[in-house]
Amino acid sequence: MKTSARNQFAGPVSALRVGAVESEVTLRLGPSLALTATVTNGSAQNLGLAEGRDLLAFVKASSIVLMVDEEGARISARNRFRGQVRQIHHGPVNAEVTLSLPGSHHVLTAVVTDPSVQRLGLAVGQPVTAIFKASSVFLVSTD
Amino acid sequence: MKTSARNQFAGPVSALRVGAVESEVTLRLGPSLALTATVTNGSAQNLGLAEGRDLLAFVKASSIVLMVDEEGARISARNRFRGQVRQIHHGPVNAEVTLSLPGSHHVLTAVVTDPSVQRLGLAVGQPVTAIFKASSVFLVSTD
Amino acid sequence: MKTSARNQFAGPVSALRVGAVESEVTLRLGPSLALTATVTNGSAQNLGLAEGRDLLAFVKASSIVLMVDEEGARISARNRFRGQVRQIHHGPVNAEVTLSLPGSHHVLTAVVTDPSVQRLGLAVGQPVTAIFKASSVFLVSTD
Repeated sequence: MKTSARNQFAGPVSALRVGAVESEVTLRLGPSLALTATVTNGSAQNLGLAEGRDLLAFVKASSIVLMVDEEGARISARNRFRGQVRQIHHGPVNAEVTLSLPGSHHVLTAVVTDPSVQRLGLAVGQPVTAIFKASSVFLVSTD
Repeated sequence: MKTSARNQFAGPVSALRVGAVESEVTLRLGPSLALTATVTNGSAQNLGLAEGRDLLAFVKASSIVLMVDEEGARISARNRFRGQVRQIHHGPVNAEVTLSLPGSHHVLTAVVTDPSVQRLGLAVGQPVTAIFKASSVFLVSTD
Repeated sequence: MKTSARNQFAGPVSALRVGAVESEVTLRLGPSLALTATVTNGSAQNLGLAEGRDLLAFVKASSIVLMVDEEGARISARNRFRGQVRQIHHGPVNAEVTLSLPGSHHVLTAVVTDPSVQRLGLAVGQPVTAIFKASSVFLVSTD
């Protein structure tokens, strides 16, 4: 199974909260890295969601917002991954920005508009935070 | 009424589940094709949602994840449309991939990053599955 | 604090509805402009959401659908901002469309596929409506 989603994470379900229509699922990706997703309850049942179950989480590069100087900002997005710019690939409308996440082997790719890269003054090596909403995460079970 | 959303589907509401904040709506698009959307209850009221009501569903090309070799994978995305690559249009950052959906007149367009097209080895004629979340669907009523 | 999100709005919380997993938050942006977001309850608590609290709302350019001739269309997206095309920047796959919102100082930027710009016949000065889902809004508190 391969997908076009540029960002893939793996880990066991560490928390699960069930609502009337949607459930909130948290995966433990590493010692200090967690990811939260919201999925419909139909999907939760289809995946057989339960604490401890190993899952993959996919996030499209276009779902990610990059933030710099985030000190003091509180943001609704449940997922906030701190990293460092590793590579920037410019296009006429969009740019692809790759981050390395220190303290983990994870790499994260975001597609943002090219004027945003200019406005944020993004450059290789710069600290940057990737944020994405729980609702933008796809969960996959391969067993 | 015309929208920038590349993917448009039409059908009657075949199921409706109401939560505290959001509702889950399923449209029947064809004999073996259904689409599920989540909308806020304010929207559901605005649309006059009820079983049997005819609606349009819009999905942005950028909301779609493409998947190959999906056998055995269970995925949280409620919408999974099997198709065949019909056309690929490459750009410097993103690529546009058009699928035909066999057994229906529907065509579906996805925008994914260009490196993903390379990584998946996408080519015209290849079987591929388009997946998108219920939360990425816009519903429209024109009456 | 700066983000890659092209669209930023500010205003006080004018309505708040709490569900089991998610909350719906409305910000008053101006005399006749409001914005609705859905966030998980964990985020709502993190932000200290309450009526009257001043927040920022971010929307990615890629989350926006453009619509023309929308008269008579009822749409599930909670956010519908009427504007006028101010600028179009074409790329090979995507195009960036900037709108001015009359009666306010706000400008709004959407990234849509370039064929959509052609299909809609978008041109500078043309009336167009930008729509985005409550689930695509990021809320930020800076105090």
